[in-house]
Amino acid sequence: MSGNSFGKMLTVTTFGESHGPALGCVVDGYPAGIVIDEDFIQRELARRAPGQSRFSTQRREEDRVEILSGVFEGKSTGCPIAMLIRNTDQHSRDYSRIKDVFRPSHADYTYWMKYGNADYRGGGRSSGRETSMRVASGALAKLYLARHGITVTAGVRAIGSVRDTSDAFTPPFDNSISAVNSTLVPLFEKEIDEARLASDSVGGVIECRAEGLPAGLGEPVFEKFSSALAAAVMSIGACKGFEIGDGFALASMRGSEANDEMTVRDGRPAFLTNHSGGVLGGITNGNTVIFTAAFKPTPSIAKSQRTVTKDLEETRLEITGRHDPCIVPRAVVVVEAMTALVCADFLLRARAYE
Amino acid sequence: MSGNSFGKMLTVTTFGESHGPALGCVVDGYPAGIVIDEDFIQRELARRAPGQSRFSTQRREEDRVEILSGVFEGKSTGCPIAMLIRNTDQHSRDYSRIKDVFRPSHADYTYWMKYGNADYRGGGRSSGRETSMRVASGALAKLYLARHGITVTAGVRAIGSVRDTSDAFTPPFDNSISAVNSTLVPLFEKEIDEARLASDSVGGVIECRAEGLPAGLGEPVFEKFSSALAAAVMSIGACKGFEIGDGFALASMRGSEANDEMTVRDGRPAFLTNHSGGVLGGITNGNTVIFTAAFKPTPSIAKSQRTVTKDLEETRLEITGRHDPCIVPRAVVVVEAMTALVCADFLLRARAYE
Amino acid sequence: MSGNSFGKMLTVTTFGESHGPALGCVVDGYPAGIVIDEDFIQRELARRAPGQSRFSTQRREEDRVEILSGVFEGKSTGCPIAMLIRNTDQHSRDYSRIKDVFRPSHADYTYWMKYGNADYRGGGRSSGRETSMRVASGALAKLYLARHGITVTAGVRAIGSVRDTSDAFTPPFDNSISAVNSTLVPLFEKEIDEARLASDSVGGVIECRAEGLPAGLGEPVFEKFSSALAAAVMSIGACKGFEIGDGFALASMRGSEANDEMTVRDGRPAFLTNHSGGVLGGITNGNTVIFTAAFKPTPSIAKSQRTVTKDLEETRLEITGRHDPCIVPRAVVVVEAMTALVCADFLLRARAYE
Amino acid sequence: MSGNSFGKMLTVTTFGESHGPALGCVVDGYPAGIVIDEDFIQRELARRAPGQSRFSTQRREEDRVEILSGVFEGKSTGCPIAMLIRNTDQHSRDYSRIKDVFRPSHADYTYWMKYGNADYRGGGRSSGRETSMRVASGALAKLYLARHGITVTAGVRAIGSVRDTSDAFTPPFDNSISAVNSTLVPLFEKEIDEARLASDSVGGVIECRAEGLPAGLGEPVFEKFSSALAAAVMSIGACKGFEIGDGFALASMRGSEANDEMTVRDGRPAFLTNHSGGVLGGITNGNTVIFTAAFKPTPSIAKSQRTVTKDLEETRLEITGRHDPCIVPRAVVVVEAMTALVCADFLLRARAYE
Repeated sequence: MSGNSFGKMLTVTTFGESHGPALGCVVDGYPAGIVIDEDFIQRELARRAPGQSRFSTQRREEDRVEILSGVFEGKSTGCPIAMLIRNTDQHSRDYSRIKDVFRPSHADYTYWMKYGNADYRGGGRSSGRETSMRVASGALAKLYLARHGITVTAGVRAIGSVRDTSDAFTPPFDNSISAVNSTLVPLFEKEIDEARLASDSVGGVIECRAEGLPAGLGEPVFEKFSSALAAAVMSIGACKGFEIGDGFALASMRGSEANDEMTVRDGRPAFLTNHSGGVLGGITNGNTVIFTAAFKPTPSIAKSQRTVTKDLEETRLEITGRHDPCIVPRAVVVVEAMTALVCADFLLRARAYE
Repeated sequence: MSGNSFGKMLTVTTFGESHGPALGCVVDGYPAGIVIDEDFIQRELARRAPGQSRFSTQRREEDRVEILSGVFEGKSTGCPIAMLIRNTDQHSRDYSRIKDVFRPSHADYTYWMKYGNADYRGGGRSSGRETSMRVASGALAKLYLARHGITVTAGVRAIGSVRDTSDAFTPPFDNSISAVNSTLVPLFEKEIDEARLASDSVGGVIECRAEGLPAGLGEPVFEKFSSALAAAVMSIGACKGFEIGDGFALASMRGSEANDEMTVRDGRPAFLTNHSGGVLGGITNGNTVIFTAAFKPTPSIAKSQRTVTKDLEETRLEITGRHDPCIVPRAVVVVEAMTALVCADFLLRARAYE
Repeated sequence: MSGNSFGKMLTVTTFGESHGPALGCVVDGYPAGIVIDEDFIQRELARRAPGQSRFSTQRREEDRVEILSGVFEGKSTGCPIAMLIRNTDQHSRDYSRIKDVFRPSHADYTYWMKYGNADYRGGGRSSGRETSMRVASGALAKLYLARHGITVTAGVRAIGSVRDTSDAFTPPFDNSISAVNSTLVPLFEKEIDEARLASDSVGGVIECRAEGLPAGLGEPVFEKFSSALAAAVMSIGACKGFEIGDGFALASMRGSEANDEMTVRDGRPAFLTNHSGGVLGGITNGNTVIFTAAFKPTPSIAKSQRTVTKDLEETRLEITGRHDPCIVPRAVVVVEAMTALVCADFLLRARAYE
Repeated sequence: MSGNSFGKMLTVTTFGESHGPALGCVVDGYPAGIVIDEDFIQRELARRAPGQSRFSTQRREEDRVEILSGVFEGKSTGCPIAMLIRNTDQHSRDYSRIKDVFRPSHADYTYWMKYGNADYRGGGRSSGRETSMRVASGALAKLYLARHGITVTAGVRAIGSVRDTSDAFTPPFDNSISAVNSTLVPLFEKEIDEARLASDSVGGVIECRAEGLPAGLGEPVFEKFSSALAAAVMSIGACKGFEIGDGFALASMRGSEANDEMTVRDGRPAFLTNHSGGVLGGITNGNTVIFTAAFKPTPSIAKSQRTVTKDLEETRLEITGRHDPCIVPRAVVVVEAMTALVCADFLLRARAYE
């Protein structure tokens, strides 16, 4: 009810503030008997961590995850798996300058209005650091999905004004931007560098695909697979748009262009196209699930901005310090994590009726 | 769990197939003491009904709603409000031609894969007719919201290749298309007419705004107001894309363009812009909530399409009969209904903590 | 959230007041492909209906249930199954005498305090008539359980001061009281007759057993099988006590008496006793699940009682009319229904992890 | 869904095994601005801790709770409050003797059947140690309830064959047994001592009362206040019976004895008696909520018992080591905690509709 849990059968509850003692999560409903590869969880966390290249904040976050429960002799037990990451630099900074000021387009003001308090130490619960536990629990979901031959991969399709219009999608995308199309990396890097030099930030677009999902996942009417994916991905801090398959482009198409005609291939029904992104009537059709998500630029910029204080005085603010000019590359693994959680949740739900 | 319920505090459960005995819904958690204006519910349903103009199917649906419970002496009692619409023409047609064929880009195939059966009588549960109960329950939500000065209005921004790029949004939009910009109505009508003449269909874009929402609605992390809205709207049959505020356009902006700076107005904090669409950190900021949704063209077209039968034979199909070439104008009230349900649900949730 | 839904995977939502247009329910999450035997549903409803003998109210309730959705060609489709019973005698009575008086130990006062209104027409939503939809949906659960070899049977163990202390439990219990031990029927009847002659009512105890449940149902910690059963049965209007296995008697036992020792029988682990009632650590152990529930006497009695009016005046009230002096025999099928719903829900939940 | 979460608006999720790294919980939906008295939480935990007297196990558990999130500058922030207790003696024992044996009336066998594994180190998730997090989160609930003048107190009413039949209930019950009636303490102690000397254990009965609850809490039909309380209390490991108000005794009463007549007192409606235990029609009536719960004897006894191994061999087992002969006194604070969580949850739910 209060927004810190996700999923119905496979449920993740997260907690923790960016500058409190720790962040953590509890993953409940996770099947027993799955080998829990802690190194994999750690590697996934490393993909989200800042400080990996000049394109992300230079803060060093260790993000060593500790598993507190639900794993015994290397395997999941069926009981809730709790994971914890201690915050190491929680008292290292002086926040007096921003303590009483609402940072523009941050959650300071809305948290203040909702709760009557605001954790001024780096955003508290609304910090991007919250996504580390999405990644940790998403890693568990991936381990389960792998046993069913399902993979989830995302990559960057646009940064600022540079947009990748190619069709190919051949992971892994191990370049500095996690770009789908590595030939665009220099252009993407340039967008980010220019934003930083301008004391500014820049947004981007991520595409994600889930391969190997069986037909029949998702629930009709209110819990369509596409609807659940939209909620999952739009719940990531800076995400402001979501489209499945051809998405907004479908709005200007004719039905004869948009429809995915069917044929028989290898003795099974198959689709000639995938405009719908692998979901029909809210239920997976066995095709690759494909969606795209838009991320706004980081609101933390060094440029001077108009804002107000908690005492209702107008003021200006420059947010200096270690802030990413572009969080999109780091969001790639978060998008994958949320997608993996949705896939695992719906897979379990469907299995009850097999 | 099975997708036919929506909302946490204000919960709607719907049931019924397009050609079964009836469609209905149960609205639970609705506050007691609200005057239930049945005429208003009926008028909302009329906005969704087909047969109102040459731009929608000529089938005549009466859609007389009957309230079965939860209302006593004209007011809500606090107990669940059930509403029922009888299907009047449920046996009137010959479905033998499509009984064993998967209609392209319909839910026939995915329901078949999920449930092992498919209601061939007009789509069954996956029919657009399901949305009538969204509208009926959304009307109840609007009645509750009105008591708190909150209004929800949607209108058409694009049909096919014609797109409204104006900023103004001055309801009511009582033109044949429910277009935000009435000067575009002739162009929108032309798009639809041409699609019909080509035995085809066409999609479109709807914008929706909620005014009067207090700051502080929405939950952090997984149940952001924007995330819940995305899920609500993406759960409408043909919806394939959702963006809040400037949405996908934010991805190519700089932070300094995208941020909503703050000022003091009338002694209260206010925003100079609304790029974020009224939501920051997942919580309403007191600004108008604005979002846009993309709808694909109706998959039912008279043009010949390739498909397969349940016996795995390739075949071709022309879907004739009374089908809208464009369902976008009729979807406007459905978008409003889902939005109203989200607003009412989050308002109740917030009130528990006041 | 508002109490009119039950179950997690198999979910029942009920609506309707005793003297409104209708009562109904929506059963969601019901597996597809189950043959729906409408006659069985009707027979189960008949077991709850009044007017079957001199021991229940003489009111004639037809309780013809209509299936509105989710069944196609005689089988469940996987979509929500809605059922409806029209109220036939909704306007037949004069309630002016009790309109402004709180009936002692009824829900009139608490509904009034909660909702600011009270449906004086026979209890409205708090009427025992609400249980008809528990029975109808419980009948669906039984049809599903039967496919897994699971049966649920309840019977009366006590009426007033007459208590059945025998061990045998050999259904069916087709006697006028639904007594487990038919030799006690005359004594049970005498208890009821004496209560009626004294313008009074009398309570009783029901025992219920579920046979054929596999080991492994139930969730640890907060959703133990026994805990869910307790909630389900205690949610029946007049139920005031619940015990599983030897229940309260266990409190005065030594561990060596209370423990169920194990052995090997037919090559499988088995238990020498069943003090725990088939549940250990909250999870079924393969033994018969056995529990007992206490029902208070009907609060509607013709004896004069002290009470107050809505205007806070002290007064006295005799509740005349067609009221059961003992609702326990009619509650037997309701107990079975709630138990069947719990069993079916947990069976589905467990199957997701098989 | 998997049983490790409790509550709807105020939600507690717990994790951890008795001999894993830690136990913990996440309390979500907790109101902002409440002063969090950590000493109080610690004192509540101390009430549950063993080793306080000769009547409980001599193991020393420190149970120092650490708050990881959701509290800032001494007050709750509205974000989830996570609490952690490290296990200090997790590797201190040799379990080889019981590793492959199902302990009679423990959860070993049912967990084995459900999950395909069993944590043999002291019961793992099914250990009574799990209740420490119920107590910690219950302490938070009590802090919130105190602001609304609501108190929850429990005490022991029976141990083995000694039963307290008095009516008085005057907390605090600070005697070695937490007995309601301190004159019975010597008899209660004798019951426990005798059980221990006999290498056996003994059960008991706890009564609990919630004072100060407003009328109107609880939801009709499936989520009655009494039903939710029953589920909450029956979810405590050894609890096998629950009754509200006069409970099972009501079954043998006449309506005229069982009904709570009303009067006017201090200008408000009041009840002459409280047979119903403060709940009518599932909703609190403003009277003290009173219920009783039965606890079975600890299944861990040193007496030799028949059982089977995982390899299906019959064997005998004596469970030696530090085991309480009677856990009832330590369960008192757990019963209070679960009750406080229910009260706080329903209070928040009701406030949404005020």
